[in-house]
Amino acid sequence: MRVLGIDCGTQYTGYGVVDLVSDARKHGRNSFRNSERLVCVACGAIKVSPRDPMPTRLLQISASLRELIALHSPDRVALEDVFYAANVKSALKLGQVRGVAMLAAASAGLEVAEYSPLSIKSAVVGYGRAEKHQVQQMVMRLLNLDHAPEPTDAADALAIAICHLHTAATRERQSASR
Amino acid sequence: MRVLGIDCGTQYTGYGVVDLVSDARKHGRNSFRNSERLVCVACGAIKVSPRDPMPTRLLQISASLRELIALHSPDRVALEDVFYAANVKSALKLGQVRGVAMLAAASAGLEVAEYSPLSIKSAVVGYGRAEKHQVQQMVMRLLNLDHAPEPTDAADALAIAICHLHTAATRERQSASR
Repeated sequence: MRVLGIDCGTQYTGYGVVDLVSDARKHGRNSFRNSERLVCVACGAIKVSPRDPMPTRLLQISASLRELIALHSPDRVALEDVFYAANVKSALKLGQVRGVAMLAAASAGLEVAEYSPLSIKSAVVGYGRAEKHQVQQMVMRLLNLDHAPEPTDAADALAIAICHLHTAATRERQSASR
Repeated sequence: MRVLGIDCGTQYTGYGVVDLVSDARKHGRNSFRNSERLVCVACGAIKVSPRDPMPTRLLQISASLRELIALHSPDRVALEDVFYAANVKSALKLGQVRGVAMLAAASAGLEVAEYSPLSIKSAVVGYGRAEKHQVQQMVMRLLNLDHAPEPTDAADALAIAICHLHTAATRERQSASR
């Protein structure tokens, strides 16, 4: 399963494409053990200029996300669910970027999953109140990367994708055991 | 000049297309007087179901707005600038619809103008704290309509378009007199 995590922002919108790969490894003479690992396919951030009018920025973000979806063909898009913003003005602006991200997913026929910051940090670091650099470090370890993903928006987007894969894998195992 | 006013909402998104038409009328033997009038080209509301997931709703709103733009070829899109929302959650949701509306405009190469609720009410009713029904009544009179535009979201969208046309006309006269 391949997930595109998107960390929406009015200046930097992070993205991260992560695969959950199952390896059937020989274990003993006639038995196999299934091991799962996470693979980072791509990550980065879409940067737009705060000097450009918002519609221009949204057009750039939309075009970049559509390109990423066409290039990597994810099975699902995952976003962070936002509950907090400094004020109504910044919530509206962030909402505008989220709307464009949701539209890019829906236009490609992809479902959108949303996770609270608490769920994302819990899934990645194991602690809901983890700091930014802890998320970055754990993302690096979980994806077996040589260096921490930069900018932090890219790490955050990978964390969102990892959260979805953990949640989806758990759900699958639960429904298989029923 | 033709303006598409959009009144964004998570359930009803009002739209109104208004023309500013200049008629050169004979006044006396050899002189003409330019009179301007507002003409309602189209208005209505895009209704989406609150039961559908947000990405589906955004896709429907986006498709309808793109259709309206292709059909009526406006010169400009005008939106209400929002400063107030009940809470961050509702500001984010409204922002998502605004983002999709801005993107539809930018995708068609149209500039987006934004006006505060105070400016819109002042331009239409002449009083910044006017009630919804006063706006509806004045929109009906200014556009010479037989009945008040329904739903109120359509009237609000027409009011936004009228506000832009008033403002743009004033600006043109000012720059012409310089």
